[in-house]
Amino acid sequence: MYRTHNCGELRISDQGIDVKLAGWVQRVRKLGGMTFIDLRDRYGITQLALDEKAPEQLISTVESLGREFVIQAIGTVIERASKNPKLPTGDVEILLKEVNILNKAELPPFTIEDDTDGGDELRMKFRYLDLRRAPLRKALELRHKMAQEIRKYMDSQQFLEIETPYLIKSTPEGARDFVVPSRIHQGEFYALPQSPQTFKQILMVAGYDRYFQIVRCFRDEDLRADRQPEFTQIDCEMSFVEQNDVLEIFEGLAKHLFKNILNVEFNYEFPRISYNDAMNYYGCDKPDIRFEMKISDLTNILKGKGFAVIDNAEYAGAVCAEGCAEYSRKQIDELTEWVKRPQIGAKGLIYIKVGNDGIKSSIDKFYTHEELQVVVDKMGATKGSLILILVGDKKITLSGLSALRLEMGTRLGLRNNKIFKPLWVVDFPLFEYDDETKRYYAMHHPFTSPIMEDMPKLESAPDEVRANAYDFVVNGVEVGGGSIRIYDSQIQRTMFRVLGFTPEEAERQFGFIINAFKYGAPPHGGIAFGFDRWCAVFGGADSIRDYIAFPKNNSGKDVMIDSPSFISTEQLNELGIKLMEKK
Amino acid sequence: MYRTHNCGELRISDQGIDVKLAGWVQRVRKLGGMTFIDLRDRYGITQLALDEKAPEQLISTVESLGREFVIQAIGTVIERASKNPKLPTGDVEILLKEVNILNKAELPPFTIEDDTDGGDELRMKFRYLDLRRAPLRKALELRHKMAQEIRKYMDSQQFLEIETPYLIKSTPEGARDFVVPSRIHQGEFYALPQSPQTFKQILMVAGYDRYFQIVRCFRDEDLRADRQPEFTQIDCEMSFVEQNDVLEIFEGLAKHLFKNILNVEFNYEFPRISYNDAMNYYGCDKPDIRFEMKISDLTNILKGKGFAVIDNAEYAGAVCAEGCAEYSRKQIDELTEWVKRPQIGAKGLIYIKVGNDGIKSSIDKFYTHEELQVVVDKMGATKGSLILILVGDKKITLSGLSALRLEMGTRLGLRNNKIFKPLWVVDFPLFEYDDETKRYYAMHHPFTSPIMEDMPKLESAPDEVRANAYDFVVNGVEVGGGSIRIYDSQIQRTMFRVLGFTPEEAERQFGFIINAFKYGAPPHGGIAFGFDRWCAVFGGADSIRDYIAFPKNNSGKDVMIDSPSFISTEQLNELGIKLMEKK
Repeated sequence: MYRTHNCGELRISDQGIDVKLAGWVQRVRKLGGMTFIDLRDRYGITQLALDEKAPEQLISTVESLGREFVIQAIGTVIERASKNPKLPTGDVEILLKEVNILNKAELPPFTIEDDTDGGDELRMKFRYLDLRRAPLRKALELRHKMAQEIRKYMDSQQFLEIETPYLIKSTPEGARDFVVPSRIHQGEFYALPQSPQTFKQILMVAGYDRYFQIVRCFRDEDLRADRQPEFTQIDCEMSFVEQNDVLEIFEGLAKHLFKNILNVEFNYEFPRISYNDAMNYYGCDKPDIRFEMKISDLTNILKGKGFAVIDNAEYAGAVCAEGCAEYSRKQIDELTEWVKRPQIGAKGLIYIKVGNDGIKSSIDKFYTHEELQVVVDKMGATKGSLILILVGDKKITLSGLSALRLEMGTRLGLRNNKIFKPLWVVDFPLFEYDDETKRYYAMHHPFTSPIMEDMPKLESAPDEVRANAYDFVVNGVEVGGGSIRIYDSQIQRTMFRVLGFTPEEAERQFGFIINAFKYGAPPHGGIAFGFDRWCAVFGGADSIRDYIAFPKNNSGKDVMIDSPSFISTEQLNELGIKLMEKK
Repeated sequence: MYRTHNCGELRISDQGIDVKLAGWVQRVRKLGGMTFIDLRDRYGITQLALDEKAPEQLISTVESLGREFVIQAIGTVIERASKNPKLPTGDVEILLKEVNILNKAELPPFTIEDDTDGGDELRMKFRYLDLRRAPLRKALELRHKMAQEIRKYMDSQQFLEIETPYLIKSTPEGARDFVVPSRIHQGEFYALPQSPQTFKQILMVAGYDRYFQIVRCFRDEDLRADRQPEFTQIDCEMSFVEQNDVLEIFEGLAKHLFKNILNVEFNYEFPRISYNDAMNYYGCDKPDIRFEMKISDLTNILKGKGFAVIDNAEYAGAVCAEGCAEYSRKQIDELTEWVKRPQIGAKGLIYIKVGNDGIKSSIDKFYTHEELQVVVDKMGATKGSLILILVGDKKITLSGLSALRLEMGTRLGLRNNKIFKPLWVVDFPLFEYDDETKRYYAMHHPFTSPIMEDMPKLESAPDEVRANAYDFVVNGVEVGGGSIRIYDSQIQRTMFRVLGFTPEEAERQFGFIINAFKYGAPPHGGIAFGFDRWCAVFGGADSIRDYIAFPKNNSGKDVMIDSPSFISTEQLNELGIKLMEKK
């Protein structure tokens, strides 16, 4: 037996007993005649103490120890002379009788501390060393606990966890698939699932009533920062439900997790706001409602007063930052440059300061004091506030105002990552029109049901049709999304037609699900949560990367194992594929 | 709201209340003036009753119902006139006030009953209908419960569930990989994991101490019956452990599952038998010990008596079937043909009957009564027994005796699938020699540690080296297997050398793990269980197929979704690959 205890469990009540511990050498210090070693494992750190009168061999073994050596330590638990109240084991230490080196370690290329000196790529290459650091260990422990609690709740609600296949069929609708060449059926390919969408609907047709799965999904997209080619989804589906049934069950899940993981309790129903309100008041469909600072539409108020910039614009809107009226010229200039960056794309920034000595504005020349006062009143701006106005194309400007709002929220300290404000966004548009390909795309996916009252407009006015779809948003992050599905094969066919599929294309790609619907499909709906993302939000982190044990880098590479990589000609021949010449 | 209750929960105590149910029409019967409908969902069946005096419209709706229609039924819970004690809901029925057809159904191509009239391929194609049948539903419910209980136990033992990547690196050692072409890095490929072996070892190096995962694995093998290209593994690894620590923890898991899933308790330690004993006494490394009938080695007893068939053979062995002494000539002939089939490959079958009127044998001519009595005594054969002897090459003959033993066990009703006899098989050989490629292969995998005392023979006598490996076997099925791993990079290098890797090949394929071992690898070991298999064993089934929601057929096809399938030229071009011309 390598150990009697782990490095996190000894207490003063264990004083006097003989123990064996095993772990990694975190640090060796000499103090007076004594040598102290911090021994680390997943469970904690325990101090080992070596007396200068110890046998010579033991002393020389301890002297040979380096950082990250793996050792077994045998000794007696004693009370520490100088206790460390920061460590649960800080009242005791082990007076060493024997040390066995289980494995040596080369000097790590960066320090294994909470704040390390290693750069990103180096830490990715030596991920096994980075994973030893407490912040990453805590991130993966949080993820483990989340997964257990999710399953506990779902099981209690009679959901069955059912595994769906990973080797499925390529459906070019949506994002790009990763494909897998078949050796036995040469020339044919499997595809890795972008989500188990069709399978979970099939399970509803099969009568499974309540399904969930914590499941890997794959998307071969051009990687943006913080996107991963493989990611994990909490995938759920229910039969005989309407939208409210789904929201209630999953609001229950969220509350269960908030309570059991973070000890945060919500005694109220999460707000449900429409997509249109989200866009109009927050400029985006995943509003951060930890702070108010809603966007006001000033178009009607400001237009027609002879200021060409606004008169010629589609839209003018503003946010009001309390306590920022004293912003200096330099600060305003800097903010102006910030909104003019290509990511935001504003042409400029208009301000109205509501100072102690009255209203001052960059558009004093074009608007009377009374006209500006109307803006101040409409926005309910109190003394000390700074009103920031953007003008232009409505869509771009709202998106700019959203970014500006978040930026001001951050600057004002209103976005504390220990505070959580969840909400539902509902009533999304069913379709998006793509100017380039001149066709409609399903905003959610082609199985999403329209809202019943909009059904007549499905073919005549697709733009106006709202989807029976919903997103779950926490602190400005879209944590999950879902919809009530179409369960009538006629409506499904209409849907494909609006999306520009010929009946043959629809049949070839989705024939099996259209057919399944003929044999008694129940009304159903569901939701999928981004598990990596949800963990990161709970952990208070901006990036999902630390919540994934072995993430890929921004070009989709695993630099630790050096993948993707070349494969042998034999493998290619067996699969019946050849590489194209590089251009 | 579609329903107030599900179809499995109403009881006599609910009498008088108004309810809404939703589900599938299992059956419609007329009896006297009444019409009865069995309404089915995942939770059960509830009887609906329609009075002949009901409103005309309701009657005509009910008359239009077909099998598998999806309906909502509204009515009052009443006591049944004739109760059905076989159904939990059998004391009540719903007196119908309203029926709403939620979806019609075409006539299913086979009956949705416990025993269906559908053939294999048809049921695979309409898997969503097959999955409605109770045996499959119960199989997937068992699987769900198994997964929950596994996680509960592992969590209680401080194992962290950590997800490892699916897009990894191809390593030609072992079975064939499925590969995934990279679009961003053209000409390079990811591979799907055959198991997370290297990642779980990396997690031990990273200090995670106890890891598990219920995870999909992939092998591109030529499919045998009951093999799936994707299958699910319960993958586990622990640090600072020796073999006994691992076996104790996972014997605990097995006992937890036996208790909580099957209500079977084991008050004893599972037997641990060596690979050599398993081969000698049962003829295989996964013995079914629900019954005794051990193989006896008769080589020394029978050789040298002048019977050329045996004198020229390497080996003679026998099993003793109690109560079969009265087998007729015809039965013996039929058994003889059975062992001569190519799957078994015996040249013939020798018998000794221990009848009431003394010993009779097919080799009377060559052996005296006393010589045969020695055999009878050695085997402890009681009156009424039939001794069955196979002769020939030792390996083939033992394998034949294993099959014969199982066959006789089945014929004698000794293999009841409600009785479970688990055991551990230990001390496997480390290597297998392959005559064709003239090299050694790792019997388990190249990271398996030799048993310490055999370490000196690693390079000098690889054949004699035993692995620190173990298999978990239940009722003749290998449910799991694992080993203590090599954690010293020098020994790992030696291992690769014995396996015929050049240092460059070892570095290219496994460099990252060999390197990881340099930075402080703890002693570690683990195990992986075949989850599909374990579910099938618990369910008392021979095939895993019913325990997988969407299995592939024997040629690796999913006939429901028609996968694999052809992909578009655009997709191929984007990936930079071409198909070879078919020969």
